[in-house]
Parts: sequence; structure tokens; C-alpha cells
Amino acid sequence: MPDFTDNLKPLYDGAAILEHERSRSLVNIDELSRHLLSRNGFLERQARVLAIIEREQLFSKKQQLNLSRPERYHLGLARAKALRRLTRKHGWDFEDYRMAEYLTDEMSPYFLHMSMFATTVREQASDDQKRYWMPKIEAWEMIGAYAQTELGHGSNVRGLETTATYDVVKKEFVIHSPTLTASKWWNGSMGRTATHAIVVAQLMLPKKGHISQFESYGPHPFIVRIRQEGTHLPPDGIVVGDIGAKYGYTSMDNGYMLFNNYRVSHSAMLARYSKVDQDTGTFSRTGNPAVVYGSLTNVRANIIMHARLILARAVTIAVRYTSVRRQFRDRDSKSTTEPETAVLDYPTVQIRLLPLLATAFALHYTGDSMYNLYNQTRSGIEKGDFTELAELHSTSSGLKALCTTYAADGIETCRRAMGGHGFGGGSGLININNDYLSKPTVEGDNWMITQQMSSHLIKKMTAAVKRPNAEPVDATDELFKRYLQQQKARKPADAVHWMSIDDNAIVDAFQWRAADLTYRAYQDRVERKKPWNSLLIQLHKLSKAFSESIVVTNFHASLRSNNIPSETSTVIRDLYRLYALHTMDTDARSFATTTAATDSTLDALSDAILKLMTSIRPHAVKLVDSWMMPDYLLDSALGRYDGKVYEALYDMAHRQNPLNRTVFNWDWRSEEIVLGSGDGGKLESKL
Amino acid sequence: MPDFTDNLKPLYDGAAILEHERSRSLVNIDELSRHLLSRNGFLERQARVLAIIEREQLFSKKQQLNLSRPERYHLGLARAKALRRLTRKHGWDFEDYRMAEYLTDEMSPYFLHMSMFATTVREQASDDQKRYWMPKIEAWEMIGAYAQTELGHGSNVRGLETTATYDVVKKEFVIHSPTLTASKWWNGSMGRTATHAIVVAQLMLPKKGHISQFESYGPHPFIVRIRQEGTHLPPDGIVVGDIGAKYGYTSMDNGYMLFNNYRVSHSAMLARYSKVDQDTGTFSRTGNPAVVYGSLTNVRANIIMHARLILARAVTIAVRYTSVRRQFRDRDSKSTTEPETAVLDYPTVQIRLLPLLATAFALHYTGDSMYNLYNQTRSGIEKGDFTELAELHSTSSGLKALCTTYAADGIETCRRAMGGHGFGGGSGLININNDYLSKPTVEGDNWMITQQMSSHLIKKMTAAVKRPNAEPVDATDELFKRYLQQQKARKPADAVHWMSIDDNAIVDAFQWRAADLTYRAYQDRVERKKPWNSLLIQLHKLSKAFSESIVVTNFHASLRSNNIPSETSTVIRDLYRLYALHTMDTDARSFATTTAATDSTLDALSDAILKLMTSIRPHAVKLVDSWMMPDYLLDSALGRYDGKVYEALYDMAHRQNPLNRTVFNWDWRSEEIVLGSGDGGKLESKL
Repeated sequence: MPDFTDNLKPLYDGAAILEHERSRSLVNIDELSRHLLSRNGFLERQARVLAIIEREQLFSKKQQLNLSRPERYHLGLARAKALRRLTRKHGWDFEDYRMAEYLTDEMSPYFLHMSMFATTVREQASDDQKRYWMPKIEAWEMIGAYAQTELGHGSNVRGLETTATYDVVKKEFVIHSPTLTASKWWNGSMGRTATHAIVVAQLMLPKKGHISQFESYGPHPFIVRIRQEGTHLPPDGIVVGDIGAKYGYTSMDNGYMLFNNYRVSHSAMLARYSKVDQDTGTFSRTGNPAVVYGSLTNVRANIIMHARLILARAVTIAVRYTSVRRQFRDRDSKSTTEPETAVLDYPTVQIRLLPLLATAFALHYTGDSMYNLYNQTRSGIEKGDFTELAELHSTSSGLKALCTTYAADGIETCRRAMGGHGFGGGSGLININNDYLSKPTVEGDNWMITQQMSSHLIKKMTAAVKRPNAEPVDATDELFKRYLQQQKARKPADAVHWMSIDDNAIVDAFQWRAADLTYRAYQDRVERKKPWNSLLIQLHKLSKAFSESIVVTNFHASLRSNNIPSETSTVIRDLYRLYALHTMDTDARSFATTTAATDSTLDALSDAILKLMTSIRPHAVKLVDSWMMPDYLLDSALGRYDGKVYEALYDMAHRQNPLNRTVFNWDWRSEEIVLGSGDGGKLESKL
Repeated sequence: MPDFTDNLKPLYDGAAILEHERSRSLVNIDELSRHLLSRNGFLERQARVLAIIEREQLFSKKQQLNLSRPERYHLGLARAKALRRLTRKHGWDFEDYRMAEYLTDEMSPYFLHMSMFATTVREQASDDQKRYWMPKIEAWEMIGAYAQTELGHGSNVRGLETTATYDVVKKEFVIHSPTLTASKWWNGSMGRTATHAIVVAQLMLPKKGHISQFESYGPHPFIVRIRQEGTHLPPDGIVVGDIGAKYGYTSMDNGYMLFNNYRVSHSAMLARYSKVDQDTGTFSRTGNPAVVYGSLTNVRANIIMHARLILARAVTIAVRYTSVRRQFRDRDSKSTTEPETAVLDYPTVQIRLLPLLATAFALHYTGDSMYNLYNQTRSGIEKGDFTELAELHSTSSGLKALCTTYAADGIETCRRAMGGHGFGGGSGLININNDYLSKPTVEGDNWMITQQMSSHLIKKMTAAVKRPNAEPVDATDELFKRYLQQQKARKPADAVHWMSIDDNAIVDAFQWRAADLTYRAYQDRVERKKPWNSLLIQLHKLSKAFSESIVVTNFHASLRSNNIPSETSTVIRDLYRLYALHTMDTDARSFATTTAATDSTLDALSDAILKLMTSIRPHAVKLVDSWMMPDYLLDSALGRYDGKVYEALYDMAHRQNPLNRTVFNWDWRSEEIVLGSGDGGKLESKL
């Protein structure tokens, strides 16, 4: 309905403001976006898939925030089916399909099928099993889930309570949940969708010479049909359902599942690396399951690359909005007529957003280097060489914790930097925030897995101390060797001089701090034999410091190897420095106590950071543009490419909010809630 | 329907675990809870109102997370009405009513009526206006909102664009929104509920000697009927509605509103402090509107006390759950049969939860002291003495920023410390998190308002430097005088010795750091005349450091004055030290550079903190019990008083999740989504 607000304009013209921002920077967006997003044809794929998705009404995000959780699953399932059909129609490959999931930006109820479910069968099934299952999986004639985590055990996989006991007589495994905490829990796609699941259970085999006494051979994967054909109801002996509302993943049916002495055939156990003799129930192992860890670390490299896109997305929204948004005139200004200051011009806003922008770039180069490390290690593994696997596993653990913490915290930092409107649905951050908050605790809790890196580093340092003349096999060895040689004679260079920054000295400071913290941990654990648990906080800090050192080192190395034109590469170099110096400033005292940096370096950080932010500020909008986030993905009034922030916010409120279609009865003296038209979200029996 | 899971028990008995935790501490819960929660009869009131609320089906929280946003408003309005009726039925006073709102834990669509709306009329209306409006307001014959913030201006109130132009001929004000950004925005209770609103608009009066040229007299409040009697629809010339989904406040109808030359009578302008002559349109001022700032700071004292309850709530949940939760056996242990370690026994979990527990206590004593300062200043103001108002305003600004940041960040820290289950609806943190995230940016953005404290401190320091012999009028003056006298001869005492901690030296370190940072800011701004905006980050840090110093000082002072028995007070003293030392450790380098603490003090912090946590750990469950959070308020499976964590999680999933009542069609080859019974959250035309 037309009204007097139809032609009102905002006080400041957001479109003109962003146009001006873009015109005053020489950053080459095309070149930079190709530099950042070329791997696997990302940019071309994004454009192609986006064009298809955007046309489909089912994929409109406009009403998502007004739907209930059951409605979100319903919609999620409808979309999952539609994506599968689009995949066939357009001949999408798997990467195209994943791109569509990325753009729709919600966890598909089908998600686990082609990820953990298919991967596990591919990697852990015997050749016979693969021949049977893979065609069905690839034709999507079934939907699979991956049931490992239980109500009582997540991180501690060895503590899983579900058992699979082999019955030699009937040649069947009996799957059983002895307690309530043995319930499978959290497993994606399992709550309402999946027909099958990989069930990870303690393999129980008869003790030698006994038939009714069993001993555990540890957790093993079994493939189980969990819902019957036709009815889609679980068989007797299985209880399965959706666990209910969560912070995020509204569209995903994370499930629970319990077994009551449920019998599956001998062939249910995936038998590539472990076999149970069908007749005798004897256990045997073939091959090296360490290969499986390899694919875990690939998942982690993906997590880093994903984290950089999450950060880039939040920063894109925040940088655009704070460029458009104006508030207060300069306190020192005499003029009363000049326009108010752009919020992004306040150093208190810059210090929250620009280091995060720099971090998105930093994560890019480290993700890149992790892919390379992964491919190298993988090809080694295929030749039977497992030497680098421990290093890869260590690095991926520390970096997973660091990068997902950056991204999870960064979303909220961006939101707060946007002030009041950051709290609104127009921010576009609600969904991404709710979903991403899972990352710091899943796939290795961020505080737990830092032990894996620290433990590995202590081993390496122990070796370096014992054999100071051994030939280094990797960069960590080299660092530790150098550290031990120079330990007594350390003289840190000034990294920050007046108006100039020594990039090499910055890298040296980060590496030295990492090595020195490792040495201290080595002393406490190996020399002083302190209890492991008493060192956990220290080990967490070590892993963080070492991971930061890796990120700084990779970022620095990329400055030499990239071939982007000089205007743009100057800005990227400033981003490198901002990431490094801001990180240094955040934990300055650890640089001082490890003699990694001089006090004068540390004292100079605040000023150097302010200057770097001033240099980067004019390029901020173009730098976020280079991440090529489509408006459809952002789903944000505040972060729109065209800067029409207020028009979009008003449209959401005035034209699209279903609540405004109902007139409510405000009066407490009446029991009636709805006065006029519309159902106003009637509750009926829902409570 | 009964099934084989009905009688399953969890591996670890949560009830027995919490019982054991409670039996091994001598903390006296009754005494401690009275100590913390006696103000205004809080405990008695909580018990009395809870008993009534819990009986009403309408206030059950069980399905809240499964409702859509429109449903949540619908429910919120139904509850608001019911609360109003319960208030009459049980003869509740206003504090009882507020307690009911606190326990139901959602923003009522009526919220603004008795808060900002009624308060503004009471404080800013003339006596005649009050006589007319207050009886209607108090009988709830109308529902009022407070329309100040606009789409384009929040913090900068002077920048508001809505105008109220006086028409001398018709003796009416013409309220108008000249732009889209002039739209009122965010105003609570206004979207669907309110009949009236206080509209804050730029008062435009004819220039002297002109009738059609106007000049602005700044923002003034007008009382306006915004919806018509009977239809509850806005009159011509007003567009008003709900702004749509937000992070939190789902049940609240935050609104937008625009005016098209909408006319209101001369009596609409609240006229206690500012008058417009009805015939001539001449402006006059009476009395001192500074009184209004007084009530703003009372709001801020409430914010601190509220922040402590929010923190205490999140910590209650996390401490109970991490006591029950077990994961991994001790890495150094040889035994393979001992039970797994309680998660709260890991220092990496303690370092996240126990300092927050200490912070809840710290905020309590500072909230307490703010109430006293407020009452003192208020009684001064009533005698016409405004001297302490600036100090109160400064303190309340710095503390608002510090305390709401603590609480907002603290909720998320608690959630992550709970690992995977923290992400689930059973955490009980989703609602509190979504709602509380508004606090860092509303009622003074936390980065913006720190300028108010810093600016005040610089003024005070300037005065102290100019007149070193002047008599101090408050604690800040005293501190600055002492600082300037000792500045050259500073020799910090060791605050942390081997096995002992000097409580006075801790206070001294915090105060010295605060004073020294003030002095540096004074030098930069007053002596070196640096631009204000270039100092903003520094000023933010100053405000934070000064506020921390206030919190430490108040906590320390309370140790001497409280009269709680010795076992309990020993633990509270440990909490004081933990809060102080952990805060010091978090920003250690600023203590070093300001010579507030010695390097040996700072080096000893990690060990001291570990020891303090070990001392506090056995009392953790009883310490959170003392905050007396009812299970109804917590609404948390993980944080239940009885420790039956897993039973409650399973009940939520298996028996209460509406999604499990529908069987879905998983197969992408079928367009049908629902296969079996239930509507499964049908979408129909909602997209």
C-alpha cells in the first residue's frame, strides 16, 4: 500500500558514499579477487551457481528469521531436495553442489551423506563393501549419517559406551546402548532424515577360549539401516530422533539414537583396516589406518579456508556499513555545518575492524600453505612415508583452534562495531553467528586440541636438545636448532622504528617467542617432570603463540611470492604488518618476557598500529569488495554492495515484516490477543 | 509412549556428584545468599513471586525455542496481560511485578510503559500535565512507548531529525519526519502495542520577528497518541510498525515511526523544564534538567546489579555442568579403571569459569557502592547541590561499559567451556545470550561512553596539576593528589610473594596504573594538544583501567566491612584476589609500563592464579548455589540444581521436541516433504 514514506530519502546517500570510497583507492579488485579466490575455479563457480540459485523462490532468505525451528527444518529439507535436483539438471559436479550449499548458507539435512558418511565408507570399507555401497550412496538412493559422538562422550572417543558384540553362533553383531549417556547425540542428518548411519561402537569379541566373555577392541565403524524402507520409521530395537533447538544449524536435524540389543549382519562392520573372522570371531588388522588422520587434516585445512571467508563476510558487512554510517561531528571542529564523521573514521572502530580485515588475508595464506602441506604429506603417505603426518596433525590442530576462534569472536566484534543496528536482523550476522558458534567446540574443542600441538612441540624440542647436531627435517626443527644455538646470546632487533617497520624482525620476534615458550614447556614437562594437567594453561598459550608464528611466517613469505601490482601489494603489506603488530600488541608481555622483542619495539606498537590503520582506511571498502561476497550470500541490509543501508532496513521493517499484518489487542483488560486481520502467530496448542 | 530407553541411567550419576560437591565445602549458603541478595527483600520476593508464576501454564518455557518470532510476540503480549492481571490479583507492588518479569526472563511488550514512558512524564511533565496523565498511566488505561532513537541517530541525540515546529496561528506543534533516517527506530513497545509515545523531536520556533522562519531549540519530549482508540490503527500522518527480527528481544515489538506534518496540541510538549508560550511561541527554561541525568545514572547502577545476576546465572549453569561432566582419564595416571576427570578439574576450564565467578562477586560490591553514591548524589541534587553529579556520571559511564562487556563476553565464555552441549538448547544460554548482546551497544555504546569517563578524569587531573594543594573533594581527587606527590619516587611493592598475597599492594597497583594512565592522557590532550579523535583508543583503555580500579577498590573495601563467618569469608577473599590478579594478568604489560607493579609480581601471577583456583574449586558449586538461581529462571538442562543433566537433555529431545512428531519424506525424488503424521512446520505461503 503506498504511503507518504514511499519517496523519503535518507539524510546521507549511502550509494554516493560507497561510490566515493571506491573511487579514492587504486586497489585493483579484479586482480586481487583472482589472487584470493582462484583455487578450484572458485570465482567462476560462484557466479555460475549463484545465477541459478537466486532465480529459485525456495532459496529466498527474506523470511528466514521469521520462521520457527520446525519450519526451518521443513524448509531445509525442501531445499536439500531441490539442490539435488538442480545438481542433476545443471550437471553440477560435487564442488558446484558445495558452492550452492555455501551460498544458501544453511546446513542441509543431507549434509552428512556426501561428507562424513560417504568418506568413511570410501576410506574404511573393504573393496567388497565399497562395491556394494558406493553406487547406492552416489545415486542418493539412501541418506547416510555418521553416528560417533554420544551424549556422554565427544572428545574422548575411546570412552564411547555403545557396544557391538560379536555373536559367533548367529554370526551377527549385537549393537547396544548400556546407559542413557551411550545415546548417540549431535549426529547431523540423523534426527529425521537419514535412512542409514555409520555407527561407531566398541567392538567386543569373545575372549580367547571363551564364548560368553568379551573384551573390547576399541571403537569401530558399522554401517546400519536405521529407518525402514517405506515407513521411514526406526525398526524395533532402535530409538532415533532430533535433539531439539540449538544456537544455530536450525535447518539441520542433529539426532540422538539408542540401541536395544539390535542385531546387524557380520558384513556391517567396515573392514578395510580391521577384520573379524566370521566363524571364529578373531580380530585382525590390515594396513595403516593413519591414512584416515590424513583426511581429518584435510578437513582442518578446509576449516581455515572457511574461517577466512566467514571473517571476510563479517568484515565486508561492517566496513561497508561503518563507511555509510555517520555519527557526531568532530569534537575539535569549530564548524557546525560539516557532515558528521563516518563511523569507520573513528580509531575506536578501526581498531576493531581493520585488524580483522588483515586477519582474513592472513588466514588465506596459511590456509593455502596448509593445502600444500596436506598434498605433500598425502603423496608421502601413499608411498608409505608417514614421517610428516605428526607435524601436519600438530599444525592443523593448533591452527584449527586459532582460526575458528578468530572467526567466531570476529563476527561478534564486527556486530558490536556496528552499534545498535548490529543487533537487528538487517545486520545479516544472526545466522552466520548462530551457526559458526559451533566451530570453537566441534571437530576438536579449541582448548582441548591445543594439547596436540604442544605435545608434538615438546617432543620436537626434546629431540633438538638431545641431538643438537641432527639435520633438521622441517621448519620447526630448523627453528628449534637455531633457537638453541642463539639462546644465550639473544639480542632482539627493533621491529618498529620511527616511521619504518622491519618485516624480518617481526617474523623473527614471533618465531623466537614460539621457540622460547616451547623450551619453557619442555623444561617444565621433561626436566622438572610436572604433571601434564598442571601445565594445560601454559600449553594452550604455547599452541596459540606457535600458531600465530606460523600465520605471520606464511603471510610474510607470501609478500615475496605474490605477483600483484604495486599499489595493491603495498596495501597487502600494510595488512601483513597490521595483523602482526596488532597480534603482538595483544600479548605484548609474552614478547617481552621471552626476549622476543625489545621494550622499545613494544612501546612503539600503539602508534605504529594507528599509522597503519590510517594507511589502510582509504582502501577498506575496496579490500572487502575483493572478497567478492554476493549480496545474496550476505543477506544484509547493512552490508549491501550498493550502500543503500537505510532503504533496505526500512523495506525489511515496513514491507516484509509479517508481524505488521496483524493488529493486536493491547488492552490487558481483554483476554483476546488479536484484534484485526492476520493470525499474528497464533499459538493454539503449541505451548 | 513407553520404550526401552525409559529406565536407562547415565554412566555418571549427576545428582550424587553435586551432592558430593556440596558436602565437601563449608561455605554457608544461607548466610552468603542473604549477604548478596537482601537488598529490597530480593530473596523473599523471588520465592513468593516464583511460586505464583511457576503454576501458570502460560509461563512455561518448555517450547519457547520452537516458536517463530511472530509467535514469540503473541506469547509475550499474552504474558504481559497475564502479569498485569496477576499484579492486581496478588496485590503486587512494582518491585514484585519487576521480579515476575525477571523470572519469566523475556522483554515484555509492556516494558516501556512503566519504565521510560512513565518516568519521563513523571520527571519532565508540568504539574498540570502530570495531574492529567499519571492516573491514566498508573491504571494502565494506555500503553506508552519512548520514541527517541531514530534510524539515522542513536548516540548523537542532538542529531535527531524529527522536528516539532510550532504553529503560532493554530497553536499546534507540527511533528514531521523530513527524511527516511528521521524515522523513529528501535523504540520498544511501539511496534504493535503502544497507544501513546513520548516523541523526542527538535523543537522549532519562529525566529524573532518572523512567523515563517524557524530555528532549533534542540530535542524536546512530546506526548502523542500514536494509535486510535478502538481500531488501534495509526491516524493519517503517522506510519508505525515493528522493525522485524533481531538477535534477541523476540517477544518485544521494537518499532519504527514516521510523521507527515502531524499536528498535536500545544499541551503535548512536556513542560516542566522548557516552555513555549502558547500565543507568542517564545521559549523559556525553568529549573535544572540535570536532575534527569541523575535518574539516568540510577538506570546504570541497575545495569551493574543486573550484569552480576546475568554473569552469576551463566556461571551457575557452567559450574554445575562441568562438575557433573567427565571426560578423559588423567594422562599421567597409570590406572585404567578410575573414573574420568570432572571437566571443572581441568585448569583450562577453571581459568575460564572461576574468574567469571569472582567477577560476579566483584560486580556485586561495585553495584552496591554505586547505589550508595547515587542516593548520596540524589539527596545533594534535591538540596540544589550538583557538585558530585559529574563524578557520578563519569563513574557510571565507565562501569556500564566494563560490566556489560564482562557479562556479554562471560555468557559466551561459559558456553564454550561447556563444550559441545553448550551449543544445544539444553544449555539455557540461548535466550539470555541473544537478549544480553544488546547491552554492549544500547544505553550508551560501550566504546563511545568511555569518552565520558576519560574526559572527566582529564579535567580532574588538570585541576590536580594546577592546584596541587587544593583539598580533595572525592576519592579520585585524593588518588590524583597522592599520585602527583609520589610520581617521581614510585617504588611499587611486590603484590605477589611466594605463597602470600599483599591485598593492599594489589589495590595500590590498580590505582596507580589508573592514575598514571590518566596523567598520560592529560599530557597528550592538555599539554601536547593532540586531537581528541586521535586519542580515542587510549581514552578507552584509560576508562577500562580506571573502572577496574574502582571494582578492585570496592571489592577490597567490602572484605573488611562484611560480617560473614570465617570459612565463607576466606573463600570470598580468594575470589577478590582471583578477580584482581586475573585482571592484572590479562593486561600485565600496562601494569609494567606504568610502574604500577614490579616485574616479579607480574611473573608470579600465573602460579598465584593457579593456586587460587585450586583453593576455590571445592567451593565452586556452593558459591554458585548462593546466588539462588531458581531452575525456572535458568531453564537449563545442564545447570539444574539436582545435577540430572543427561536425564533432562534426553527428556527435551525424546519427549518434548515437536519435530519428532512428524515423519518426513527423505527422498529427493519425491516433492512431498511430510510423509507421516504431524504438520512438520508446514510453510505454505510464508516464504
